[in-house]
Amino acid sequence: MPVNIERLQKDHFELSEIGRNEEDRGIYRTAFSDADMKARRWLMDRLEALDIEPSMDGAGNVSGILGHDTSKPRYIIGSHLDTVPCAGSLDGALGVLVGLECVRSLKESGATLSKNIELVAFSDEEGRFGGMFGSEAYCGAITPETLQYFSDLEGRTLAQAMQAQGLEPMEALAAKRSPEQIEGYLELHIEQGPVLDRQQMQVGIVESITGLFKWLIHIKGEANHAGTTPMEMRNDAFMGLADFAHEIPRILDENGSERSRATIGKAQILPGAPNTVPGLVELTLDCRDPSQEVLDDLTLAFRKALSAIARRRRLMFEFEVQSEIRPVACAETIVSALEENAKKLKLDYLVMPSGAAHDAQIVAQIAPVGMIFVPSKDGLSHTPAEWTDWDHIMAGANLALESLKQLAQ
Amino acid sequence: MPVNIERLQKDHFELSEIGRNEEDRGIYRTAFSDADMKARRWLMDRLEALDIEPSMDGAGNVSGILGHDTSKPRYIIGSHLDTVPCAGSLDGALGVLVGLECVRSLKESGATLSKNIELVAFSDEEGRFGGMFGSEAYCGAITPETLQYFSDLEGRTLAQAMQAQGLEPMEALAAKRSPEQIEGYLELHIEQGPVLDRQQMQVGIVESITGLFKWLIHIKGEANHAGTTPMEMRNDAFMGLADFAHEIPRILDENGSERSRATIGKAQILPGAPNTVPGLVELTLDCRDPSQEVLDDLTLAFRKALSAIARRRRLMFEFEVQSEIRPVACAETIVSALEENAKKLKLDYLVMPSGAAHDAQIVAQIAPVGMIFVPSKDGLSHTPAEWTDWDHIMAGANLALESLKQLAQ
Repeated sequence: MPVNIERLQKDHFELSEIGRNEEDRGIYRTAFSDADMKARRWLMDRLEALDIEPSMDGAGNVSGILGHDTSKPRYIIGSHLDTVPCAGSLDGALGVLVGLECVRSLKESGATLSKNIELVAFSDEEGRFGGMFGSEAYCGAITPETLQYFSDLEGRTLAQAMQAQGLEPMEALAAKRSPEQIEGYLELHIEQGPVLDRQQMQVGIVESITGLFKWLIHIKGEANHAGTTPMEMRNDAFMGLADFAHEIPRILDENGSERSRATIGKAQILPGAPNTVPGLVELTLDCRDPSQEVLDDLTLAFRKALSAIARRRRLMFEFEVQSEIRPVACAETIVSALEENAKKLKLDYLVMPSGAAHDAQIVAQIAPVGMIFVPSKDGLSHTPAEWTDWDHIMAGANLALESLKQLAQ
Repeated sequence: MPVNIERLQKDHFELSEIGRNEEDRGIYRTAFSDADMKARRWLMDRLEALDIEPSMDGAGNVSGILGHDTSKPRYIIGSHLDTVPCAGSLDGALGVLVGLECVRSLKESGATLSKNIELVAFSDEEGRFGGMFGSEAYCGAITPETLQYFSDLEGRTLAQAMQAQGLEPMEALAAKRSPEQIEGYLELHIEQGPVLDRQQMQVGIVESITGLFKWLIHIKGEANHAGTTPMEMRNDAFMGLADFAHEIPRILDENGSERSRATIGKAQILPGAPNTVPGLVELTLDCRDPSQEVLDDLTLAFRKALSAIARRRRLMFEFEVQSEIRPVACAETIVSALEENAKKLKLDYLVMPSGAAHDAQIVAQIAPVGMIFVPSKDGLSHTPAEWTDWDHIMAGANLALESLKQLAQ
């Protein structure tokens, strides 16, 4: 028995109106905002309507368990309800809605499962206060310092934002679940990239979530007059950046995998006057791959390239590591269950890595995880133009339902 | 008889204190500021002390003529007194001080010249209101619109700034001199580049002032998620910029001269987030050469390179010409007089182009021009660290004096 798509569409319609801005049609449900809390209460109401007791833990995670025998192990399905500012309606929300529909379908079907099913909507995945707060609390990965230390762009601390919504920040420490109870975690999410859409696939089965390192690199040369300084007497920091940008394809070819990505997304050129040879360049490097070994090789290769460029161009360079996240492999049991059911449902699917970070990456600390991707139209996300065809959503939802049945049976 | 270096040093010391900031030791004599006007009055006092009647024309140019017979043609020597903010003490000022010392020496020597010598200190060379205002007014190249249209970074118009100093802006139109009266113009200036200093030369003899074109270039691609967008599916505007930067050496080698210079001094990368593939890049290109033919060839080559990069990377580009200045050749008579006297004085000299713009470039519209460069320590200018050894200043001043004698004899 497939999911009820009309019901899912109705839920999507209702949830999408929470936090919607009438002017730009974007959704504003940043973590612990009024709209975010309203969406959480909306979900609790949906669970209550199913006769499932809803709860909100100290971190703001909303959950409900299908099954009365609390001694049974649990299988988790979910995602997040918070959004970036001016978001679309699917990033995070779709995973929660599909989870809700799965729980509803399972309840209706009267299927007897050996495991309980828990639906979870994690809080602050998108990072108003750093990101992944809800799933980290769920996994026991936060400390009292987290609560005081993290603040949003306006300087408001996480603790203040939580208190303003009637939540006691220190209670977030009690959101930690016992790993022994959790058998696995399944998350459906939009791809947020162009791969499935371009290859006309219905779903993606995630085999790994890429790790990454982010560097802030300074290249120092000497600022000089653009008219009076001959080309061969320059120490042009910008040309060092151009050299570095050009080494990226070679470095990926030589040391990366076909899944490696490296991006210079931000660069500041100083002093930044048209008639002055740049003396200083500040740039970011964002590098991702699903294998830690590959990331280690790439780290070395990027360092070597920077050293060589600095020597050749008479420049100095230094860099600081801004973040480093290890890759996470999805559990083989879940990946093969998803593949098996995708074949049964005759879906066009692709086994692929996730290039973006997700709650599943955090939950992997305490349980086997798996993810289903649905295609993002034109690869777009974090914009009101974010969209996925309902056919593909239905395909993803049915794959989630069937796989969950199998995994929790 | 050489110039009196102690007298020149004393003048330099006095003038350098006008507009000096005690904190950063920089000089602030931006055009038509109180300090700038004080420097002009200081120069008028020096002329009066020489029994030379000083005048300030409607554009703020200060001048004085050595010689009583006004029917005689004139030879001009000078430069400017205004500075950029936080300037050194030599840019512009040295040319005026050397001119003053030459006039003083000539007067003392009692030499009979067939031409009068006019010392001029032009106003707003540095560009608080666009640059070269005084020399343009002197050559009759300004219009009433100039006065209303040009404004400084705070939005104050040139007319307002002049009125605040008791000058009637429209009088600037009367600053125009008759070209028939002017036999030539000689300007001594610091090089503002590293060439003389690195080659341990005492003076430079300028044979041409480079022309230039400045473009503002937009390269448009598509902003995408750095984690989820495979390398081969990107339209990375920043990589277009890196490609373009790398074409510069080839383009200069193939189409430029050894005196060509091309600089990307400013670049803005948008949206400018570390985890987003850049969708738009805005950059400036500053390109200079002493030959208009070479500049035309370079223009074509840069357009072709941009087109090819855009096609290859699936990007769009457009550019607007922000300024275009034709090169100016120094007069052969003056260049050869300077060379002859440099040899007589046994100076180590280099015949070279000027990569920066100068008042001489404007005066060339109405008279033959020539320039003497003195070395800039480490190529520095527009900073309190700007400096030239007194030995080199003396060499340059004596070269100016002897050449002026010969040219005006």
